[in-house]
Amino acid sequence: MSGPGDVLELIRQGRASTRGQVLEVTGLSRMTVAQRIDALLTAGLVVEGPAAASTGGRRPRRLRFNVGHALVLAATVDTTHTQVALTDLAGRTVAEHHLDVAVADGPSSTLDAIGACARRLVEQGDLGDRSLCGIGISVPGPVDPGTGRPSQPPIMPGWDGYPVRDAVSRDLGCPVVLDNDVNVLAVGEQHAGVARNARDFLYVKIGTGIGCGIVVGGRVYRGVAGTAGDIGHIKLDDYGPACACGEVGCLEAYFGGAALARDALTLARSGRSNMLAATLEERGRLTASDVGGAAAAGDFAAANLVREGGRRLGHVIASLVSFLNPGMVVIGGGVSRLGHPLLAEVRSSVYRRSLPLATGNLPIVLSELGDLAGVTGAAWSATDHTFN
Amino acid sequence: MSGPGDVLELIRQGRASTRGQVLEVTGLSRMTVAQRIDALLTAGLVVEGPAAASTGGRRPRRLRFNVGHALVLAATVDTTHTQVALTDLAGRTVAEHHLDVAVADGPSSTLDAIGACARRLVEQGDLGDRSLCGIGISVPGPVDPGTGRPSQPPIMPGWDGYPVRDAVSRDLGCPVVLDNDVNVLAVGEQHAGVARNARDFLYVKIGTGIGCGIVVGGRVYRGVAGTAGDIGHIKLDDYGPACACGEVGCLEAYFGGAALARDALTLARSGRSNMLAATLEERGRLTASDVGGAAAAGDFAAANLVREGGRRLGHVIASLVSFLNPGMVVIGGGVSRLGHPLLAEVRSSVYRRSLPLATGNLPIVLSELGDLAGVTGAAWSATDHTFN
Repeated sequence: MSGPGDVLELIRQGRASTRGQVLEVTGLSRMTVAQRIDALLTAGLVVEGPAAASTGGRRPRRLRFNVGHALVLAATVDTTHTQVALTDLAGRTVAEHHLDVAVADGPSSTLDAIGACARRLVEQGDLGDRSLCGIGISVPGPVDPGTGRPSQPPIMPGWDGYPVRDAVSRDLGCPVVLDNDVNVLAVGEQHAGVARNARDFLYVKIGTGIGCGIVVGGRVYRGVAGTAGDIGHIKLDDYGPACACGEVGCLEAYFGGAALARDALTLARSGRSNMLAATLEERGRLTASDVGGAAAAGDFAAANLVREGGRRLGHVIASLVSFLNPGMVVIGGGVSRLGHPLLAEVRSSVYRRSLPLATGNLPIVLSELGDLAGVTGAAWSATDHTFN
Repeated sequence: MSGPGDVLELIRQGRASTRGQVLEVTGLSRMTVAQRIDALLTAGLVVEGPAAASTGGRRPRRLRFNVGHALVLAATVDTTHTQVALTDLAGRTVAEHHLDVAVADGPSSTLDAIGACARRLVEQGDLGDRSLCGIGISVPGPVDPGTGRPSQPPIMPGWDGYPVRDAVSRDLGCPVVLDNDVNVLAVGEQHAGVARNARDFLYVKIGTGIGCGIVVGGRVYRGVAGTAGDIGHIKLDDYGPACACGEVGCLEAYFGGAALARDALTLARSGRSNMLAATLEERGRLTASDVGGAAAAGDFAAANLVREGGRRLGHVIASLVSFLNPGMVVIGGGVSRLGHPLLAEVRSSVYRRSLPLATGNLPIVLSELGDLAGVTGAAWSATDHTFN
């Protein structure tokens, strides 16, 4: 019913700090507790501190989670770039690097670049005798948690079924956990961001793709095939715009980063937005963040794009809130930089369309960690995976 | 981390049938296991059978869940009637009765009728020395699990905040658990119906109302305010038909039992369905099941109603499947008697609109227990609640 990871979790969370407390909280046998704590001490994950106050008899030694004992490598592979970081066991970044490889480069080049970067970071870093004890990697597509391979990802050519986990583990000699980017972002916010006290929440990422991390009872829920949270391809209209997945009318085809860039181009070329036309002429291309910039500067057409997209996203989130009754909704990802006008639109949709009882105490907030959520979450996932 | 209920669950599921196996599976201390099994033996929930084969040393005694030791009362309060059943500890009906009270009669009359019926069933039954050990009640609206009271139910006038759990518990002298009807239906299918081997599934009830029971990792997920699964009020159209909840365009306003009856009346009166017009003339009213009958007998307009409703329901289920990636979808409730034409429409929507990876191994099936699912589920909930 429980393993050494559960005992570590108790100590890490401060719910137990002596052997006696672990015994009491878990109801495990004295021998089992002794074995599990010995394993954690041997691994260096837990250290014994000074003796605690006695409750009669021998004074118990305090147990403390040793965040600095080892290092974790976190890598987030995205559609535009790859971020690699060394962190301590609490997910705090010790050193980091941005790589110019992305999913389109294929698994082999991308993972080679991550491996080389990891070795460089370890060599350059002043790590003392700390070694790499685990690796967490995220990719923007579904992952089979059993095999650690991407599973039919729609926007990752060449990655389907590639043994990412085993390849990196062989290369760097560490246990590796591979997960979907939104799950990892949710884990990051849960441990170090705005969702710190939430056990049940949704993390909605709006970037190139749109996806949702689902945290239920404190754990990421992945569904039976690892595809849970795939809200980007919820179909809003049978006759809507074409989507990268091959279908039409998906939420992502309306409000993903690529869709916003496409609509911005139309506004610029059709003369409906002078501001976007000027940016297009200056830089030769338009991105989702140009829409945000123009909207913030008062461009009506751009602001309308944000409002319409936010309304569509809000309709989908309203359905999910009615369905799952979460305790919090966190909005993150590149497009979330559209900021408060987007948030206002989403909030208005959700608060108007969902059952009052489900929205009564429901905060809908922007991600707190922003770009840091990915590596923080990947690092936490790696620690959890390594010691469970 | 675990209680006597977990040990009971292991024995009930056949995962452990000796003290040694309980020790092994749980990792609990010998003393804890001994205490918990003693408690279960004293309560009569577990009996010791003949000695099992020895693995060296004293031959261990087999432990067996004693389904016949006590009785459970299950009551499902619906919008049209109330069903009351006495069952054994495995949810199998020993005696049952249908009452002519329903939610519209208000909590006091309904609960009095349930209490009187329970006493009658116990007195009339040949129960030997078996006593009532727990009561499970379901209502068609959200319930606050903490207080055992209905919580802002939209179609239950007078029930909001009524102390159902405490009132019945005082009346009948037993622990009572109150839950939403769809959760209880899901529990029924999970223990004795079509979802027996599923740990992650959705139970979609289409009756007067439309709701969804969400089972995640083997347990019903209720959300932070107990409203999870409220899919009947997902809004499909800002300008759709009026709903009983006060909003417009809800799924329920298109395809709940009342909506189907309303549309059937329109078809009959406008001359578009001779078959429904004849039924209306004969009986003076039309129900959702008349639509099913007419559709099955070849009435085009009625069949079209089933198709359209199934398509709308299918769109919502397709979104939920993309979102949660469940292992099975079970369709039940009165309107589900429209049967295979409805199922075909839902399947077609879901298989066409959801991600292939999420639908690859996804059975979408009709409820196996039908009317029995409610009392079976309420009885299982009561047993779980009583011994946890």
